[in-house]
Formats: sequence, C-alpha cells, structure tokens
Amino acid sequence: MHLRSKQWAKPWLEAHTDLVIDQEHAQEKRGQWQAIFDQAQPIHVEIGSGKGQFIMEMAKKNPDINYIGMEIQETAVAIAARKSFDAVGILPNLRYLYGNGSGVETYFEKGEIAKVYLNFSDPWPKSRHESRRLTYKTFLSSYQAVLPDGGEVEFKTDNRHLFEYSLVSFMDFGMRWTPADYTLDLHADADKVEGNVETEYEQKFMALGQPIYKVKAHF
Amino acid sequence: MHLRSKQWAKPWLEAHTDLVIDQEHAQEKRGQWQAIFDQAQPIHVEIGSGKGQFIMEMAKKNPDINYIGMEIQETAVAIAARKSFDAVGILPNLRYLYGNGSGVETYFEKGEIAKVYLNFSDPWPKSRHESRRLTYKTFLSSYQAVLPDGGEVEFKTDNRHLFEYSLVSFMDFGMRWTPADYTLDLHADADKVEGNVETEYEQKFMALGQPIYKVKAHF
Repeated sequence: MHLRSKQWAKPWLEAHTDLVIDQEHAQEKRGQWQAIFDQAQPIHVEIGSGKGQFIMEMAKKNPDINYIGMEIQETAVAIAARKSFDAVGILPNLRYLYGNGSGVETYFEKGEIAKVYLNFSDPWPKSRHESRRLTYKTFLSSYQAVLPDGGEVEFKTDNRHLFEYSLVSFMDFGMRWTPADYTLDLHADADKVEGNVETEYEQKFMALGQPIYKVKAHF
Repeated sequence: MHLRSKQWAKPWLEAHTDLVIDQEHAQEKRGQWQAIFDQAQPIHVEIGSGKGQFIMEMAKKNPDINYIGMEIQETAVAIAARKSFDAVGILPNLRYLYGNGSGVETYFEKGEIAKVYLNFSDPWPKSRHESRRLTYKTFLSSYQAVLPDGGEVEFKTDNRHLFEYSLVSFMDFGMRWTPADYTLDLHADADKVEGNVETEYEQKFMALGQPIYKVKAHF
C-alpha cells in the first residue's frame, strides 16, 4: 500500500502519543507494554496494519486481548489511528506503533507478544526484493524472538505468489501447520471463515471473486 | 473415479499381458523392469492412471522415458490400455500395471523408478478414509522405497482439500519443495504450465474455471 503523504499526519501523531507510540518510545517500553493498557492480558500485534480496519474491529470484538497495530508508513498509521480515535476514542485495548516490522525485537521481549498477524502484506514480487517480504526468514526470526515458544503467526493474503512463497518460507524455517490451520479459499470454507474479521483489501478482492489464502503457522 | 464394470475388460486384459502386467507378474519383474521396454532408460510411474490420457500422451511426447500407468481398477486399466492399443499399438516405452499403489515396493526395487506421478487422485474426503489418500504417509513411504534418494513425486489435482492435506503430509514426511516447484493455479502461470500434459479430469475442471493445483515434492 502506497499512500500519498498527508500534511496533517505528522502533527496529528505528535498530538496523540498516548494512542500512537513511535519507534523511540516503543524501544523504551520493551518489557513493559502491559502498563499502557487498562488490563494486563495477551498482546496481539498486526505487522503492517495499514488503514487499520482489521485491528480496530478485532479490538472492539475481543476486549480480553490487547492489540497493537504496527505500521511503517506515517500516513497509514495516522489514517488508522485518527479513524479509530474519531470512531471510538482511545479503546482500552488498542494502540498503534509507528515503526518498522524488522525492528520488532527491539520493541518487545521474548514472549511479550502472544500472537502476530500479517494481513495482505506487500507482495514485493521481484526476486531482488525477497528480503522485504514480511514472511522472509529474517522477519520470521524477529517474530520468533518476541513470541513464546510454539507461538503463532496468522497470515492472510489475496496474493497467490506471496502465499506460495510464504508457505515454503515457513516450512524452511521449521514452522508447522495442519490442514485445519490453513485454507486456499477462506471464504469457501464455512468452518474456517467463521468469526473472520475482514480487512479493507480482503473486501476488495472478495468483491472481485478472488480466493483469500490464510494460514496459521506455529514456530 | 468409479466406473461401471465392463464384461470385455477381463478377457481383453488376459489377451494383452504384453501390454498390461498384473500384480502377480509385476512382482516377478521386480528389479528387471527395463527388460520389458525396448530401451533401458528412466522409468516414470503414474499411480492411479485412470483412463490413461496423461500417460499415453507423455509416452508419445517423451520417447526417452519409459512409462508405466498403474491402476487398481480393472475397468479403468482395460479402458486405458485398449484405447492406447487401438490408437498406437504397443508403444516401445509404455506399459500398464493392473495393481495396487500400496504394493508399489513389492513391484519395484529401490531406485528402479525415477519419478512418480499422481494426477487427480481420489480425494477420499472423510477423515476415516485418510489412509486411502495416495498422499497419506504410508503411500509416501512406498514411493520413497522405489525412488532414488531425493526422488520426486509430481502431483496435480483440482481438489483443494486434498491439495491442502497433501502439502502438509509431504512436509510432515520431510519432503521439500520450493515456490518454483508448485502453483496454486497451474493454468494461470505461463512458465509453469509450459509443456503441461492434461488429464481428462484436468480438462473438465479447467472448463469449469477451477484452478488446478500442482506440486513437485522431493524426498
């Protein structure tokens, strides 16, 4: 997702540091994230939360989970946070992190995150950009560093080539999943789509009749 | 594939034992299969060759490979062999084996087969029939027993659930593949569909606009 930069984004973020934590402050919170939420409960992080529909809906739906939407693009995180702020104020269990997915282990301790979500990540189709894909081995290593042993990465995409790539990347990294943990057509599997929270991209590609791929892979 | 039995099948097979080898004679040929072909060259076996379009086309297209179509259903192997016999007689590099895929290591020695094909295998969707799926671990063990070290199983299907199951079964068995080795939509990948030989089922499901899944997995 590439968004045109918005003039209001930077000042808005600076005025809402209680809702959106920047990289520098995120590093200071390492090991102490529970303190910024109303309740100490499992923290789930979406890496690349984009315009934030998924993470906001998840936070509203699951008050017993603390959510962090991490996003590297200033405009995107500002749009997501402002939309969420305007709609529901500051939810007790939702914060945003304006930061880089590759720095995830500088923000969180081992086991501090209970689950990682990747949704409709940039496919970076060119081979020479492989290392930028959020399912590349260096990213997997970062996720492993902040999840508990056996921790889970839940990944959805419409992009067939990224999904093909990612399953192999997970496998080569030693991650595992079962047939019950994945689907090559999410919205055709009644049992697997139940409770699914859609992202903006997901709705767009569903409308085009394209399959959505999903896997829950464990370290 | 379930075919109504044909009265002509049994006598036709008995009259063409040079083209179709039955289980008993297959066991006697163990380690000596090259002797039944005109030339000693790599042997590729399709397990569950059905009505035989794929294996016949492959044999015509690749004279430097010896092909064996293995099929457990008498009617199917008779239809395949008779169609092939009527069209081209007895090709120097094509034979049929009327036998059970689970007995493959009783027919062939380790390394006697260079490659195994599985095409549009019966999905056996019920959990209690898992062990009948041709990608179940006991079958994989049999294929491993007749292939060389690192040998390849090439698998195509239209059945999403069977494909989802099979990728995990391969992975759990320690088999490996790369993104270049598989596709979740064969006919949408120009580079992967090049040289593809279609089966009867494949043509049927393509006409319905359904994706064909394919993987080449290595032990």
